[in-house]
Amino acid sequence: MSRNLPAAKEFIDGILSGDRMLLSRAITLIESTKREHQDLAQEIIEGCLPHAGNSIRIGITGVPGVGKSTFIEAFGNYVIEDEGRSLAVLAVDPSSSKTRGSILGDKTRMETLSNHPKAYIRPTPTSGSLGGVAQSTRETISVCEAAGFDTILIETVGVGQSETAVHSMVDFFLLLMLAGAGDELQGIKRGIMEMADTIIINKADTGNEEAAKRAMAEYKNALHLFPPTESGWIPKVATCSAFHNKGIPEVWDIVDEFMRHTKAKGFFDKKRKEQASYWLDESINQELHRVFYNDPDLKREMESYREQVQQGQLSSYKAARDLMQIFLNKKKK
Amino acid sequence: MSRNLPAAKEFIDGILSGDRMLLSRAITLIESTKREHQDLAQEIIEGCLPHAGNSIRIGITGVPGVGKSTFIEAFGNYVIEDEGRSLAVLAVDPSSSKTRGSILGDKTRMETLSNHPKAYIRPTPTSGSLGGVAQSTRETISVCEAAGFDTILIETVGVGQSETAVHSMVDFFLLLMLAGAGDELQGIKRGIMEMADTIIINKADTGNEEAAKRAMAEYKNALHLFPPTESGWIPKVATCSAFHNKGIPEVWDIVDEFMRHTKAKGFFDKKRKEQASYWLDESINQELHRVFYNDPDLKREMESYREQVQQGQLSSYKAARDLMQIFLNKKKK
Repeated sequence: MSRNLPAAKEFIDGILSGDRMLLSRAITLIESTKREHQDLAQEIIEGCLPHAGNSIRIGITGVPGVGKSTFIEAFGNYVIEDEGRSLAVLAVDPSSSKTRGSILGDKTRMETLSNHPKAYIRPTPTSGSLGGVAQSTRETISVCEAAGFDTILIETVGVGQSETAVHSMVDFFLLLMLAGAGDELQGIKRGIMEMADTIIINKADTGNEEAAKRAMAEYKNALHLFPPTESGWIPKVATCSAFHNKGIPEVWDIVDEFMRHTKAKGFFDKKRKEQASYWLDESINQELHRVFYNDPDLKREMESYREQVQQGQLSSYKAARDLMQIFLNKKKK
Repeated sequence: MSRNLPAAKEFIDGILSGDRMLLSRAITLIESTKREHQDLAQEIIEGCLPHAGNSIRIGITGVPGVGKSTFIEAFGNYVIEDEGRSLAVLAVDPSSSKTRGSILGDKTRMETLSNHPKAYIRPTPTSGSLGGVAQSTRETISVCEAAGFDTILIETVGVGQSETAVHSMVDFFLLLMLAGAGDELQGIKRGIMEMADTIIINKADTGNEEAAKRAMAEYKNALHLFPPTESGWIPKVATCSAFHNKGIPEVWDIVDEFMRHTKAKGFFDKKRKEQASYWLDESINQELHRVFYNDPDLKREMESYREQVQQGQLSSYKAARDLMQIFLNKKKK
């Protein structure tokens, strides 16, 4: 990042006019933990917000090997070429900092898409906690929408808590599975299946169609065991072969049907509002911590309290209560 | 719970003298969310703390069907009868509120142990968030230790975040597995294997010994791939048949060796201090939320801010900053 950063207005104007370079630099600011970068990033976000929101946000998950990149390549090209849409692809993968195996780091796996003028692929940030990565991804969605992208794909790998984070920022959650592997083998927990608005069985290639059909029937049965969703949407199950580009339009048809279903009944907006509310609470949480733990006087008190708790002389509950009283009284002065 | 509650001193004296009835009532107070119960519970805990800490705290996890109850029955009877110890069995299972399938609810699965004068089995609390259940379990450990129990078993089911919570409150973490099922089939994530100080392959019964031995070799190999622990302890793998009461003394020998290893090098105390520190931060977190969200003036402001965030007029980051300023300025008055 250059030392001579453009002003917020320059960023905002550039993003709104579709300047990719400024969009990328803005996202880098959003991902930065430096205070001055964050301040500028927030100004940019505020400027983009009135132009954000007009998209379909799609979450995609599935274990490594299920073919997420190939699917995104095929699906992305279809929605751009045949549906006339524009596409931004983001990723939430907080584990990548350890394994250095960033999901989207290898853009060569999405060759056509990464060179398409109507697609924008943003590699996974290489570090950060899930909370931090999730917040920056949410903010990145807004600036991508302001830049005119009407379809946002957010990819995550099928492990840990990242699905929950992604689920809380998308309209439609798609779970990619393989046929014949059994859901236990795919490391997919019941909780993740419950989040899915649709399950797509990938790699339904020649010779594998029968297994894919059986899996489809099984997942349909499994999904019927879950309580119905609030909107009345019944999760669909379909097969595709992303590698052979088969079954891709049908996936989009499902997304389209979902959009019409949820928008007609007001559930689309309701869900977005609930998500915004959830993220407000997350932001408040971060802010509370920042203020409390950075209070210089409290820092000194904290040390002695922490030691007493560690020595078993004081319960953590009592210590927390006392520290809070110090914090509150100090503010009253 | 009776309306006429004994005073804190009566509870403390009773617990220290080993009164089971008062111990159970104190734990019920600890688990209660009522303010007056919590206040009394905290007094009791403060009184117990100077007498707490002298135990080995063992966490046990494994998927349903692995034989946790049978293992605890066999292991518990062994440590009481042959090692001359006393045992308290607790559980962390926040999902039980939904499924009503409390792990320890059915004491008949631990028939001998539940009737043993040197054992105390506390069924899972039937409701509460993971945070709340984890905190009350930690406090329950302290009162059980004050009541003289020198061995604390904390059981959890191998799903979700409850292992992490249990891992953060025990000295020794034991993972129960089955032979021949494959770790994917057992729903055990890599993260849980990394937490294990020992893996015990249960149901190494007649006819299944070979599979158990193969699994043992595989898990040993797998554990070698993980980075070494700070204390230099190399996680052990052993087999047992809890149902046939085979291999149980060997499990205790491992626990004993672990204790000597970590105590000799100071890692035992170090880990307990780190855990206490972690729980202080968790308590602070709960306290911050309680104070912030219950502030009556802030509640009113919150509504309008939340609406602006939901309408996309304000970023959650900016809203959180503004609300924090209101909170802090108000306190200064």
